[in-house]
Amino acid sequence: MQLKQIKPEDLKYNSDGLIPAIVQDVATKDVLMLAYMNSESVGRTLASGETWFWSRSRQEFWHKGESSGNVQRVKEMYFDCDSDTLLLLVEQKGAACHEGYYSCFHYALAGDGTVTIKGEPMFDPEEVYGDKK
Amino acid sequence: MQLKQIKPEDLKYNSDGLIPAIVQDVATKDVLMLAYMNSESVGRTLASGETWFWSRSRQEFWHKGESSGNVQRVKEMYFDCDSDTLLLLVEQKGAACHEGYYSCFHYALAGDGTVTIKGEPMFDPEEVYGDKK
Repeated sequence: MQLKQIKPEDLKYNSDGLIPAIVQDVATKDVLMLAYMNSESVGRTLASGETWFWSRSRQEFWHKGESSGNVQRVKEMYFDCDSDTLLLLVEQKGAACHEGYYSCFHYALAGDGTVTIKGEPMFDPEEVYGDKK
Repeated sequence: MQLKQIKPEDLKYNSDGLIPAIVQDVATKDVLMLAYMNSESVGRTLASGETWFWSRSRQEFWHKGESSGNVQRVKEMYFDCDSDTLLLLVEQKGAACHEGYYSCFHYALAGDGTVTIKGEPMFDPEEVYGDKK
């Protein structure tokens, strides 16, 4: 059912002008990362078919994979019932996490607070990012 | 590899004291919703094995499924490389979305901004929530 046509600015952004964007692997359905977009990042993502975030730490646009080559090709995009969260299903090139793991969610937390690492790193961050890490 | 033991307050919370928590179906791997937890919600979730959020609109603890019966039994829990996002893999009873859909992410957004609804509602929100909706 086709509903309507919206613009990036029609989504609901927080007081910093950002919306959280969950990135999921379209093939394995693993959740890879969560990052933030502003209205222009959403527009760039829709137009280019690759993920563009807003880096809160660097306060600049962040075209995922620009440094590492690990770009994310967007295959499906959704927003939720409150229009305040995005879900992007992507083809992930290489690994998503700057620590070299495929997914950023590699710290498993048990009910008693015990942390274990899940999986193995796919690349050495030093080699990929060097000083830019 | 076992790393260490952490407390809920060791995670990174935003300026409102909240951390986003992605909820994913452990069986189908569909992403169901994103909600927010404060440190005490994280503690209650770890202790009870069911999801406890902090409702930003109602400013109160929100034990998911308390009104609707659609509780989420936590099977696996992860945090990311920045310790500022949670991922919970759950057994979802009924549907996750207050609009009656299984997932809150039922609005598909195409590159040209066209919105289409994906899937069908599983329950009538009026019947489940009534005035509490």
